[in-house]
Amino acid sequence: MARSVMTRSEIVDAVKKYTDPFRVQKGRGFRLKDFDPGDTLGLKMNKQEASRLLQRGSEWLAMEQDMLYAQDSWSVLLVFQAMDAAGKDSTIKHVMSRVNPQGCDVFSFKQPSSKELSHDFLWRYAQMAPRRGRIGIFNRSYYEETLVVRVHQQLLKAQKIPAELVGRNIWDERLADIARFEDYLTRQGTVILKFYLNLSYEEQKKRFMQRLDRPEKNWKFSASDVRERRYWADYMKAYEEAIRATASKAAPWFVVPADNKWFTRLVVAAAIVEAMEKLNLEYPKVSLEQMKDLAAARAELKQQK
Amino acid sequence: MARSVMTRSEIVDAVKKYTDPFRVQKGRGFRLKDFDPGDTLGLKMNKQEASRLLQRGSEWLAMEQDMLYAQDSWSVLLVFQAMDAAGKDSTIKHVMSRVNPQGCDVFSFKQPSSKELSHDFLWRYAQMAPRRGRIGIFNRSYYEETLVVRVHQQLLKAQKIPAELVGRNIWDERLADIARFEDYLTRQGTVILKFYLNLSYEEQKKRFMQRLDRPEKNWKFSASDVRERRYWADYMKAYEEAIRATASKAAPWFVVPADNKWFTRLVVAAAIVEAMEKLNLEYPKVSLEQMKDLAAARAELKQQK
Repeated sequence: MARSVMTRSEIVDAVKKYTDPFRVQKGRGFRLKDFDPGDTLGLKMNKQEASRLLQRGSEWLAMEQDMLYAQDSWSVLLVFQAMDAAGKDSTIKHVMSRVNPQGCDVFSFKQPSSKELSHDFLWRYAQMAPRRGRIGIFNRSYYEETLVVRVHQQLLKAQKIPAELVGRNIWDERLADIARFEDYLTRQGTVILKFYLNLSYEEQKKRFMQRLDRPEKNWKFSASDVRERRYWADYMKAYEEAIRATASKAAPWFVVPADNKWFTRLVVAAAIVEAMEKLNLEYPKVSLEQMKDLAAARAELKQQK
Repeated sequence: MARSVMTRSEIVDAVKKYTDPFRVQKGRGFRLKDFDPGDTLGLKMNKQEASRLLQRGSEWLAMEQDMLYAQDSWSVLLVFQAMDAAGKDSTIKHVMSRVNPQGCDVFSFKQPSSKELSHDFLWRYAQMAPRRGRIGIFNRSYYEETLVVRVHQQLLKAQKIPAELVGRNIWDERLADIARFEDYLTRQGTVILKFYLNLSYEEQKKRFMQRLDRPEKNWKFSASDVRERRYWADYMKAYEEAIRATASKAAPWFVVPADNKWFTRLVVAAAIVEAMEKLNLEYPKVSLEQMKDLAAARAELKQQK
């Protein structure tokens, strides 16, 4: 496999060109309009080339994940946020294709239950934070509490927060709470990567049209998705403020161009590979003590019928 | 009941004398030795008097809890911390005796499971934070992560945190994380009161002796409790630093004298009554719309056989 012919730092160098241009680790001054949803870094690949490259990335990932699981100490949290049809589901599917599902949990956060609504807003997400040794994927996340809930404020009402605690700073407060929560998690051993799949308004329309045109894609379509396009500007503002308030070195955002799916996947795969390579994971070393135990076990096994 | 003859502010005035001397809401400069475990504010009560007063407090509490449940917006978190035999269990039992158990959940945090150990240290506690409308009682809490784990550092090893993240500031960091977590929860609508039942070294010895002497108390005794007394000074230091780092106006500590059980209970009851009275809880008002619905329901019910 690739690992045998490339060192860790060579791998990091190889993937950095896909990640550096899209990484945001200082929120101040961040503007969404500085990022082009159609960007491919000038690369033109045919489907086969892109897919071969992605496959290699997925294999590296699978190797790293196996060591992550074995050493049972670090964990990885991947947060995916995007407008509808930006390709969250298919990106997760393709990038994580080689990873052992036993060490990788995907949580799709849909509408909250009444039990979830009657707790603090981070409650249902914090419970799903990955265990040591695991990769946890949030397909939508606590960021929705500052996105859809901000755009449709009747959703905030449903959370039954005492009225005197709902001030005009509530969104800034929530973003600050999220930043603190992420800071806390990273210091407990969770590597956090956040992906905003940056889809253009025009490309979304095209993809919705496809969902209407192709029978096998009909199930993905919902009339409310189209209605939601009216709030596009509100969503962009909410995303921009979320990224500004929560981008940090420890928990960076990647504003991933999403108008070309092959490129989206490459960037996401590159970011995960890069972060995991930097952990310098290794299989746990066997101590002299354990070696003796292994030798004894081997001897006993031989003696048995 | 008492409520009918006393106003809210009269009740608050009546209980303040039990709470003000023991409330710590600014941690800086806090010293445990400034608080006397044997303090009773000079009060001398016989068992009957104390019990009658406590009963009145418990009744107020029960009324407040009923409204808390009905309005379904605020919640209350009571954190109990203490050395062994300080009376946590019996205080909870006596103070909450009148409260409807449907609106009150007690969680006793014992040794963590391997699943709990493989998550961030707040994980198992955050899940048990009370729902809106409920009183949640933590019999021991996340503070143990800076107390027993600090005194017996092999427990920290079992948490499998990546070695490079375990620095010499880990206890200060944990306390800061706890302070942030509590600050966050209070802004979501959870009223937090923290009780340190302040037992003296000598009184603990007496109570252990009773557990050995009286057959009906034997089950409460464990030999390891006695061994743990060797670490008394370490625990006191850890408690002092915990209170210093986490006392705040929004989430105050009460350093409750614990050498006299009747007094411990009065102070705890007073603190809860005071905090809940200050919420100005009321039963939800019925709107004109709802009144019409009620009238219609009454009419339909009459018609039915």
